Amino acid sequence: MKKYIGLITDFGTKDYFVGVLKGVIKKINPEVEIFDIAHGITSHYLYSASFIAEKNFSYFPDGTIFLIVVDPGVGTDRNIILVSYDKYYFIAPDNGVLTPFLSKEDKVVRIIDADHYFLSKEGSTFEARDKMAPIAAYLSKGIEPIRLATETEEYIIDNDYYPKIKGANKIEGKIIYIDKFGNIITNFPREYIFSSMSASSFTKFGLSINGQEIKEFVKVYEQGKTSPFMLFGSHGNLEIAMKKKPAYKFLKVGLNQPVELTFY
Amino acid sequence: MKKYIGLITDFGTKDYFVGVLKGVIKKINPEVEIFDIAHGITSHYLYSASFIAEKNFSYFPDGTIFLIVVDPGVGTDRNIILVSYDKYYFIAPDNGVLTPFLSKEDKVVRIIDADHYFLSKEGSTFEARDKMAPIAAYLSKGIEPIRLATETEEYIIDNDYYPKIKGANKIEGKIIYIDKFGNIITNFPREYIFSSMSASSFTKFGLSINGQEIKEFVKVYEQGKTSPFMLFGSHGNLEIAMKKKPAYKFLKVGLNQPVELTFY
Amino acid sequence: MKKYIGLITDFGTKDYFVGVLKGVIKKINPEVEIFDIAHGITSHYLYSASFIAEKNFSYFPDGTIFLIVVDPGVGTDRNIILVSYDKYYFIAPDNGVLTPFLSKEDKVVRIIDADHYFLSKEGSTFEARDKMAPIAAYLSKGIEPIRLATETEEYIIDNDYYPKIKGANKIEGKIIYIDKFGNIITNFPREYIFSSMSASSFTKFGLSINGQEIKEFVKVYEQGKTSPFMLFGSHGNLEIAMKKKPAYKFLKVGLNQPVELTFY
Repeated sequence: MKKYIGLITDFGTKDYFVGVLKGVIKKINPEVEIFDIAHGITSHYLYSASFIAEKNFSYFPDGTIFLIVVDPGVGTDRNIILVSYDKYYFIAPDNGVLTPFLSKEDKVVRIIDADHYFLSKEGSTFEARDKMAPIAAYLSKGIEPIRLATETEEYIIDNDYYPKIKGANKIEGKIIYIDKFGNIITNFPREYIFSSMSASSFTKFGLSINGQEIKEFVKVYEQGKTSPFMLFGSHGNLEIAMKKKPAYKFLKVGLNQPVELTFY
Repeated sequence: MKKYIGLITDFGTKDYFVGVLKGVIKKINPEVEIFDIAHGITSHYLYSASFIAEKNFSYFPDGTIFLIVVDPGVGTDRNIILVSYDKYYFIAPDNGVLTPFLSKEDKVVRIIDADHYFLSKEGSTFEARDKMAPIAAYLSKGIEPIRLATETEEYIIDNDYYPKIKGANKIEGKIIYIDKFGNIITNFPREYIFSSMSASSFTKFGLSINGQEIKEFVKVYEQGKTSPFMLFGSHGNLEIAMKKKPAYKFLKVGLNQPVELTFY
Repeated sequence: MKKYIGLITDFGTKDYFVGVLKGVIKKINPEVEIFDIAHGITSHYLYSASFIAEKNFSYFPDGTIFLIVVDPGVGTDRNIILVSYDKYYFIAPDNGVLTPFLSKEDKVVRIIDADHYFLSKEGSTFEARDKMAPIAAYLSKGIEPIRLATETEEYIIDNDYYPKIKGANKIEGKIIYIDKFGNIITNFPREYIFSSMSASSFTKFGLSINGQEIKEFVKVYEQGKTSPFMLFGSHGNLEIAMKKKPAYKFLKVGLNQPVELTFY
């Protein structure tokens, strides 16, 4: 069976960082195939990486190993972890970026400690190259997780990734992603909104962002009028968009900014 | 024989859109190889995608399936079509983006309607993932076009992609692409210019753009002087460039802007 | 044994230039795999390409063929060369970009002249597509270097790529790369600095750039304070960085700008 490694990083596409990861991986396992999933994450912003991994992993072939590198603490003594969940593997720094998978019941978490597989054992400014990529490559080659890492019950979950209840009819969330079309993606999943509504007597919802109210709701972008509207994006979360226009510019908002959902 | 899918989109390289397309494709057909041809097309601007497909398809291996996604009407009831031309396949929304191939005599056009191959049958904001990528993957796996789509004689050709005759010695065209070096690419193909000239008594041509006349013509960029000059780009169309400078900034022009060619 | 071609260019990721190179290569050799190493090099700036190739080639599988295209003289009569060094091949214009390998004792340099392997023999504005990619593809297919190119002792080495001694305790270098995090990379390799120091009685060094002195030195980014600091980057050269901030903006510096190292 073919093996795959999928890369999600904040390395950008300007530099050679991603390219050299691939060299390291292929030098260890020439048979593995590598997916570039996303490299344009805002430097050091964890929630965008969590979002991309959570909403996309299941579209990839069974057994895919995801290497997720947004790592402001690179070179310090923070751990690197390997999470097994569903039919997939996730390798990342233990900084909360794997929250969507660490929050699951049936996962296994391991601290990567088999340093004889590293290119270099020392702390480095490029541990994706020196430590994570080699581990992903050996895992893809069939080395058992147990030989690469030691099971643990201690790891970092960042609950700020999720929305919070603020009152009888209010939920506070945030902007966790802005795409190239300028669409604004919140951390409100469709199921979360509808289960909140079905547990109450509310039938509608509106959104407030940067002091601006948004009430229009559409199914596809083409149905939108000239003002900003809400829709559930292809990822399943509530999104604020405008027709052929970057909504984030019009609304003057940015990543991590709070968003309030009101049921009525 | 190896199978290939080539991607031309306006999805950019910042997001995960292209990455997830590849996941979907490989999950269906692990054997196919995927080319990233271009993802930096200006959002929703069809002619740049048409241009890239037209000028590059024949450099790719026989049988390559091109997936061309510039799709402002995504999620509406516009069709998705499959065009067979030469030894290649082209999958795209029926919005005129395939004009260069639809204008050919010996093509076959089909409306994709085998919705049991889709990931989701409903209108979505990401039909490249939910409908087009799966169809491309099954086609690459050897499913016959006839089982994926139904032949049609009705499809959209956008003749504004081509230049127009404006008088005895004038042709009006437009800027259809600007590359990263800032070179300005018109929709005047070399053969079109020379056949127009050979049908008349003219021997030279000049170009007018944004009120500025360009008369110098060179073969390669290095021959240029300090002012803007014309040359036939590696794609075969007339291009306006400057030596080691972005011509589009100097001339203050943008995509879709008119350009006039005068023979004399 | 699997064969690989690695691409280092200033073509950017916006256009179709890199995509079509891959089409050309795969049409000739379907078995070769292609690495995108870096395409975001500043247009026509050779030293960044030299730096990327020098610091990364050895991470790639043995036998990898590197195609390095930063080529302001494209279409003129400058040569295209093939350099064999270590277990690797390098194809590039003969404009100094291969200086790090041409400076080695045990390399072989050849002028590529087997023009029957080119897509087009004429001078063109896209010789990466028409000449270099086909040669790389045939080389990857097992055609011997001797059948593609003729050995030469004449080639261009650009010694300005290296630092220069300016006095008893001063070395002048330059900025040869700025990464997406805004880190500033100089052309001072770690070994060069330490061998200079060990040959003298000095034990420390400081750096001056754009009239600003930098004295703090750290091992990893997290150790930095709020002002700019030095560290040896993962590439081995001296780097100037700031904690979670683009140092090049703070210091108002750019590519190719001089940097002075003082021992004391």
